[in-house]
Amino acid sequence: MPRINDNFLKLKAGYLFPEIGRRVKAFTDAHPDAAVIKLGIGDVTEPLPEAIRNAMHTAIDDMGRHDSFHGYGPEQGYAFLRDKIAEHDFGRRGCDISADEIFVSDGSKCDTGNVLDILGPDNRIAITDPVYPVYVDTNVMAGNTGEMQEQGGYEGLVYLPVTAENDFNPPLPEGKVDLIYLCFPNNPTGATITKEGLKQWVDYANANDSIILYDAAYQAFITDESLPRSIFEIDGARTCAIEFRSFSKNAGFTGTRCAFTVVPKELTGTTAAGEQHAIHPLWNRRQSTKFNGVSYIVQRGAEAVYSEAGQSQVRELISFYMENARLLREGLGSIGIDCYGGVNAPYVWLKTPGKTTSWDFFDSLLNEAHLVGTPGSGFGAAGEGYFRLSAFNSRENVEEAVGRIRKNLG
Amino acid sequence: MPRINDNFLKLKAGYLFPEIGRRVKAFTDAHPDAAVIKLGIGDVTEPLPEAIRNAMHTAIDDMGRHDSFHGYGPEQGYAFLRDKIAEHDFGRRGCDISADEIFVSDGSKCDTGNVLDILGPDNRIAITDPVYPVYVDTNVMAGNTGEMQEQGGYEGLVYLPVTAENDFNPPLPEGKVDLIYLCFPNNPTGATITKEGLKQWVDYANANDSIILYDAAYQAFITDESLPRSIFEIDGARTCAIEFRSFSKNAGFTGTRCAFTVVPKELTGTTAAGEQHAIHPLWNRRQSTKFNGVSYIVQRGAEAVYSEAGQSQVRELISFYMENARLLREGLGSIGIDCYGGVNAPYVWLKTPGKTTSWDFFDSLLNEAHLVGTPGSGFGAAGEGYFRLSAFNSRENVEEAVGRIRKNLG
Repeated sequence: MPRINDNFLKLKAGYLFPEIGRRVKAFTDAHPDAAVIKLGIGDVTEPLPEAIRNAMHTAIDDMGRHDSFHGYGPEQGYAFLRDKIAEHDFGRRGCDISADEIFVSDGSKCDTGNVLDILGPDNRIAITDPVYPVYVDTNVMAGNTGEMQEQGGYEGLVYLPVTAENDFNPPLPEGKVDLIYLCFPNNPTGATITKEGLKQWVDYANANDSIILYDAAYQAFITDESLPRSIFEIDGARTCAIEFRSFSKNAGFTGTRCAFTVVPKELTGTTAAGEQHAIHPLWNRRQSTKFNGVSYIVQRGAEAVYSEAGQSQVRELISFYMENARLLREGLGSIGIDCYGGVNAPYVWLKTPGKTTSWDFFDSLLNEAHLVGTPGSGFGAAGEGYFRLSAFNSRENVEEAVGRIRKNLG
Repeated sequence: MPRINDNFLKLKAGYLFPEIGRRVKAFTDAHPDAAVIKLGIGDVTEPLPEAIRNAMHTAIDDMGRHDSFHGYGPEQGYAFLRDKIAEHDFGRRGCDISADEIFVSDGSKCDTGNVLDILGPDNRIAITDPVYPVYVDTNVMAGNTGEMQEQGGYEGLVYLPVTAENDFNPPLPEGKVDLIYLCFPNNPTGATITKEGLKQWVDYANANDSIILYDAAYQAFITDESLPRSIFEIDGARTCAIEFRSFSKNAGFTGTRCAFTVVPKELTGTTAAGEQHAIHPLWNRRQSTKFNGVSYIVQRGAEAVYSEAGQSQVRELISFYMENARLLREGLGSIGIDCYGGVNAPYVWLKTPGKTTSWDFFDSLLNEAHLVGTPGSGFGAAGEGYFRLSAFNSRENVEEAVGRIRKNLG
């Protein structure tokens, strides 16, 4: 009988969001009339901008005619999209990234998991704590960790705690690590990093021959223009970083699906024999062999993000969600709850009052205010005592949520 | 420095289709006026059916309104699509497959590669020869093989040769294997399997605790109603098979991207400790963690394949390509070339005349008739001396191609 991948058995049974779903269902079954507002999962709620919809309508019409029908596209993405990304997201910000270093995909979740396909065993891997759970779980599946430990966390990973005590700046690892996952603006804490702060990481990585897996899925929410939107704004990043970007949160693509990953050609890893080997051809081979490109229709939609109308409509979307974030942040602040993030990120990260655990706070917020958020401890042991609220919702719901928070927690 | 996955270095440098592209480019550069007709890659050419386009237009409009906007969908696919697949593709053919055993994805290429994520090391793996190269290459990447051997083929894989001598019926493996890749109607040979033939495989797999990875991407081209379209038409398959299906070739989705994989709940593998473990929750976990579902718009398009108009339009597409296949088959036959397939499959598999190698035949077809096909040896050592022509093209091109074949090879 075929052997299964035993590493899957190390995974905790309940992923964070299914457990939230279970508790919400139990509550709504018991209180069918309660108007529950969900500020939990980071899913966009506003309609897809018109410029993007128009471009996709045209692309569908293209598919209906012989002379403009599109079959298999390049696995790496169409040039019309890669060129625009290279110009708008990188060239215009002074980053030296060429179109053929950009790999269009159907999601950053896929890419951050799949990147482990091209990396070998025995790497020492650092992640921040709390962290987006996919980084951890995909390493568990790939056999890069031991078992879950009693105090939380998997054996073999290097956890870098980020809390109010260090201002949510992850400390550089003690000693040498091979891979480092960083995410700025951060999910879940909403923290950002300055150019100077990121330069320290790039310098560490180059000095220690590490690769930084940089998740910039939330870069569009940066309002402070001095902050870096890409790690490639930092000198030296081309020899030490892969960047993950997405249209999910800026352009509302969570249900439309398009993202991209940037792999600079200078980046190298090492073979078992100790020889240097470029990462770019490995990722290219992985994508060519195990992926067939993103839907032509969706890529035309993503291209429209870069049109004049698209840019203006996307900016409106971002402003809308950031106003939600402001309302949440100020509402919480007005009743004396410490909160972080929500300025350059769509997440507000709050300190639970007193010694309340994250899950106890979840339960009381659900029971008393009929609000759903995400327990900080679900993102890692160091997230205990914190709680995430998402700014992705309607204005009406956010205003109602703030009212309930003031009333019930004030 | 991070270790790379050294298994990638075992892969042959040139994947089949890039090498074809290289030779075609060299020819067209030297002969810019030659009207080259490509019957190589199995990519559809006819426009996407109207019913599918209409459904996608409506889905885009849904995305433009608050009340019908769709963010993250279920990673496994929307119920509206899974239910229709379960009913039309399985229920109506007497197969006992429930909607929650169907996992919607963005491509069978992805799924046939990604399935190795949930399978462990040390499995004995059988593949037919010739074969769709992705099965082999993804096993190489996953470390399930040794090095490429001089006579062709990777160390550690069990190759099952299929040639005219055995009527393109792969022989059952000698001894016990854990995983078996089967594809019917076959790419590249165009061969089919009867229910009795497939029953022998299911019986072998159940007797030997093997799992059959059954690729039925071309099932829509079956014209002989006695042939099985799904392995789940065979008694006993629920305990030994995973099936890969796609909208690429039946509904023209190669550029639109939608497929699905069927994992029955009875299917098990074994842990390192020798315990049985169900495969379904492993695949569910893999997809939930490393995938974010297919675009809502594309899933609405796939759903429309099952509407009355969609079914009728898809049947027309299939008939169109099958008429192309008939013209190719009869054209080749009329000048005494032995050819196979092309009756229940969109591929015609021909024996090269005399002792011509596959690549020599490729070169002479390109140079003399300005036609591009696919050398059989590119699909495996046992494909040497064979050649694949694809029926995916316009009628005009196919008729012109047949004329050139008669003139140049006749």
